[in-house]
Parts: sequence; C-alpha cells; structure tokens
Amino acid sequence: MTSPNSAFIAACRGEAHDHTPVWFMRQAGRSLPEYRAIRGEGSILDAIRKPEVAAEITMQPVRRYGVDAAILYSDIVVPVAAIGFGVDVAPGTGPVTERPFRSTADLDRLRPLEPELDIPYVLETVKILNDELDVPVIGFAGAPFTIASYLIEGGPSRTHARTKALMYGEPALWHALLDRLADLAIATLRAQVAAGAAAVQLFDSWVGELSAPDYTEFVLPASRKVFAGIADLGVPRIHFGVGTGELLELMLAAGADVLGVDWRVPLDAARERVGDSVTLQGNLDPAVCLAEWSVVEPRAVDVLRRAGGGSRHIFNLGHGVLPETDPAVLGRLVELVHSFS
Amino acid sequence: MTSPNSAFIAACRGEAHDHTPVWFMRQAGRSLPEYRAIRGEGSILDAIRKPEVAAEITMQPVRRYGVDAAILYSDIVVPVAAIGFGVDVAPGTGPVTERPFRSTADLDRLRPLEPELDIPYVLETVKILNDELDVPVIGFAGAPFTIASYLIEGGPSRTHARTKALMYGEPALWHALLDRLADLAIATLRAQVAAGAAAVQLFDSWVGELSAPDYTEFVLPASRKVFAGIADLGVPRIHFGVGTGELLELMLAAGADVLGVDWRVPLDAARERVGDSVTLQGNLDPAVCLAEWSVVEPRAVDVLRRAGGGSRHIFNLGHGVLPETDPAVLGRLVELVHSFS
Repeated sequence: MTSPNSAFIAACRGEAHDHTPVWFMRQAGRSLPEYRAIRGEGSILDAIRKPEVAAEITMQPVRRYGVDAAILYSDIVVPVAAIGFGVDVAPGTGPVTERPFRSTADLDRLRPLEPELDIPYVLETVKILNDELDVPVIGFAGAPFTIASYLIEGGPSRTHARTKALMYGEPALWHALLDRLADLAIATLRAQVAAGAAAVQLFDSWVGELSAPDYTEFVLPASRKVFAGIADLGVPRIHFGVGTGELLELMLAAGADVLGVDWRVPLDAARERVGDSVTLQGNLDPAVCLAEWSVVEPRAVDVLRRAGGGSRHIFNLGHGVLPETDPAVLGRLVELVHSFS
Repeated sequence: MTSPNSAFIAACRGEAHDHTPVWFMRQAGRSLPEYRAIRGEGSILDAIRKPEVAAEITMQPVRRYGVDAAILYSDIVVPVAAIGFGVDVAPGTGPVTERPFRSTADLDRLRPLEPELDIPYVLETVKILNDELDVPVIGFAGAPFTIASYLIEGGPSRTHARTKALMYGEPALWHALLDRLADLAIATLRAQVAAGAAAVQLFDSWVGELSAPDYTEFVLPASRKVFAGIADLGVPRIHFGVGTGELLELMLAAGADVLGVDWRVPLDAARERVGDSVTLQGNLDPAVCLAEWSVVEPRAVDVLRRAGGGSRHIFNLGHGVLPETDPAVLGRLVELVHSFS
C-alpha cells in the first residue's frame, strides 16, 4: 500500500512534501542486469503475461534506486493486443501490427476491453505490487493518438504519414477510431486503479508530430474523454508526450493533473506556458545519462533549478531510460534529487 | 541566370516584391513520375554524379510547378562521401556509414574538401542550371551537427544516443569533428555559389533533438562558423531544422538571413520569438499534402495568414515533400500561394 506520506502523490496534488520525488520512465527493465537475468526470451508481451515476473521487474528499480514511485512493467499496446488486434512488440523495433488499420471494417477488430477477462495478468501484477510496495504504483495507458499511429503505420515511422493521411482523409473514421481507443484506455486505467494503482500516466509519445490546430481538432476530444472518464477515481493523472513544446497548454486542457515535459523545453519555460496550477514532471535528456557523472550532475541541477523548488515538480527524464544506461548513474541521480530538496 | 526581379531573393532580403515566393524542400525527385523515369537504378549518389541528369531532375519541378526557386538535386552527405569517409544513401533508409565515426583516429578520414577535384559534378550541375533557369538556384550543405549524427550513428536513429554520448563524453573530439564538418560545409557552399548558386540553405535537420543549452555549447560555434565563412559572398543564407521551436533564436544567432520553420511552430509564434529582421520560410505539414485539396487549402491559407502578408515570408513545407505526394497537389499549392499574394 502506498504510504500516506508519499512525496510523489503530494507533488502530483501540489501539496507540501519533504523532498522532490523522482522516478524514471522505463526504469523497469532494459538497462538493469537483474532484469535481463529474469526476463527470458520471447516478446515483452509474454513477460507481461506473468504477474510474478512482471511484478518483480517492476520492483527491481524501486529496490535498487529508491525511487518514489513504481511504474508498472507493461506496454501501451497490451490492451489492443489483448482484444486480438494482432500487435506484437519486436525487440529493438517496437510495436508492429500484422494487419494495419486501414478502413471502417477494421473498427470491428477493436471490441471493448473487458479487463478482468482480457488482461487479468495486468491486474494481478498491480495487486501484487500494491501488497508489496510502500511507494505508489503508477498505472498507464497509451493515448488514443499514439496507439492509433501504431495500428495505422504497422511499424516504426519517422513521419507518421499514413496516420496523418487517414486523419486528414477520413476524419469520421479517424474520430471513430480514436473514440474506441479512448474507451480502451479508460477501461484499462479504471481496472488498474481498482487493482491498486495510485496514479496513472497517459502516454501520448508521438503526438508532438502534430501542429496545435491538428491536435485540437483530431486528438484533444479523445484525450479529454480519457481523462474525464477516470476523473471520478480521484487518482492523479499524468499526461506525457515528446516534442510537445507547442502543445503543452492543449494537453493541460485535456484534463491532466501533471504534465510530463521532454528535455527540449526548459521547465521554467514550460511553467510560463501552463501556469501554476499543474505539476510538471521531467525533464533530463535520457542521453545525458550515458555520460559521466561530471556531465550528468550540472544538467540535473539545472533541471531542479528551473523547476523552481516548489511543491509542483516530479523529477524524471524527458523520455524513457535508454537501454545502454549505466544503472549507477540513475542511482546517483536519485541521491542527488533527494539531497537537493 | 537569376532574374533581377526574383521574388525569392527579394523575400530573403526583406525587400519589396510582387508575390509570396514558394518552393518545396525535396521538390526535386521522389514524388515526380518524370523523375522516376530518368532516375535509374542505384544509389542517389550515382545520379548526383551525372550533371546532365542531376540538372534535369532539378529543373523538373520548376517546369511543372512554376516554383520561385530551384533546389539543387544533391544530398547533404555528398561532401563526406566525396572525401572517402564511406557513406552511402540507402533507398528508404537514408545515409548509412560503413565504419561509423568513433574516435580521434577517425578525424583523419575527414580531410579538407577540394570542390573542383572532389565534387566537380556538383559544380557542373549548378553551372548548367544557372545557364538554363531564370529562377535562383539554391545550393545547400548539411550542418555540422546533422552530418556528425549520420557519421556517428552509422544509420537511422530515433534517439541519436550515440551522437549525444560522444558529444557529452568527449567534448574535445566532438568540437574537432564539428569544426572539420564546418570547413566541409563552407568549402562546398563557397564552390556552389562560385558556380552560380544564388542562395544557400544549411540543413540541420535533426538538431531539434537537442536542448537549448546543449545547442549553445555543442552546435552553435560550428554553425556560426559556417555562416561567417560564407558571409562575404553576399548570397542569402537559409537555416533549417525540424522540431526547433525552442532553438529558433539560437539558430538565428548562428547568422542566417532566413529561418526555416517546421509545421509545429505557427509562423506568428515563430515571428514573436525571432523578431522582424529575419525572413521566415515554411511551414505546411508535408503530410497535409497527402490529403485532398479541400483539406490542403485551408491549412495553406492559415500558413499564409500567420505569416502576416509582409515581405519576409517564403512559402514552403515544414519538411521535405513525402514520396507518396500527388504532384497535382503541389501544383495547386503554388497557384494558391501566388494568387493569395
């Protein structure tokens, strides 16, 4: 169970707390030797389907680093994979879709998620974690735009051209798709919270590809639906994307309590754009953590300084931990953040 | 020879002209059937080495669209390839480096460029174009950061982690590398102008991966050196990168006369950030051009409106023409821009 004195939860709410909380996107997995030791072969989706394994992987960085929150070891494509859309996560590539989303007929491949039946392993993992940890467990979901981009592109894309072509070319189909994906996100997030997640993050990783007017027209309604659909649960809601400097105000308007900011936008600049009523999460460039400590330290201090020292900052990287990161650097980073406060 | 009444050149200089000029990054090649008809098999570098072919490819979009400038059919890796670094351009992938840049010893693989000996075909192409066209020919080079990222990564990268690791981990080597790449850019740009290029563009396509402090420390000196190294030539200097919303002021400080802006930053917002003494170039999302005209038109008009109707706007896309673009859409776009003015 989450300690009632969680600095992370307090920071999400803008309430007083005694140190700046810190966690790292993708802290679970990838760069940890103890992860590679138990991960096994096969798709990440196989590992996620084993609650004991997924819970252990989730807890490893909490034990090693003393971070202030655990992020569930899972993947944003788990719900679409679980309802049979035909998605896998290829090592080193990311989500790949066997038969990409192309037309109205493909909507039928996106039936509603029944969490207890479709993703019981995710809920079991959250329950184990909630029993074993005294830091909050962050549940998460992929935001409708980013999930749509994976379903439509079929594989990695630099331009997201197919996604945008469908968005511009068939707006009614686009909105129907995003609406279904919003429902999926709501279903998985509600179930994760019911199982014990103390906060949730909506990952809209690639939405920074869009201009602000396109975000407003094609994305905001669905993302807003997700946040509204979990508002009654009372848990902090984090919203994150990469390259979103021009979108921060709109992402806030979608309804988040905490905005994740990547390393491109200094936190003081982000604060100017979004005002004082939201907590900011971020934003050290994950590539900085590939360098020696003498390089990391001043840049981490700069992040802390730009955050302004108030109660509305959660330290994190500006995107996920890179696989080649030395865990010792992340450990020192946690110490630094905690001692700086 | 460039007509003395070139709207493009006037816009670069902020001088009065009778219509908003327009050209498209990657207008030459890719999406044009007449291009595919003469391009032949093999690497793009092979086609670039044939001046008659490269000149014809450069002129095709000028004839078809009536754009206000021709962009040389070439590639930013031509100089490093020409001095024997071992770079090729893989179709659908982009530049790949056989033996990536890793250590001080690799600096020796970057000897100075002797344009007349190393890239005579580029200069010959520019000369042909200068004889045959009455619109300006835009020469170009890759900016030191972006070329460095190709040499270091060895292939496409989403995170540019290796590039940043070298930048942070071996700053002296990094600066030595960027300094050599600045010299290469200066040499190729000076030679292109001597051969008849009426303007030049420095492509720093991937520099938007960096935070502003890192740009200032690790990139600005080399980019500034490039612009200073061609200042005496008196031709307009354009500077372009993707995802550079937080870097525009710094890129301007590097010395450009024209700033290219991608679609993420509305031109009125960009104008606020950089002031009135620079021309802005952009910035329709290239993916918009995959849609029907009814989708394209209002967005193109929005770009024109946000540009404010003054003499300091060059219409362009926010990045290169996507290969699957219907040429008819680009043709209508040129008509629209010209008639709007």
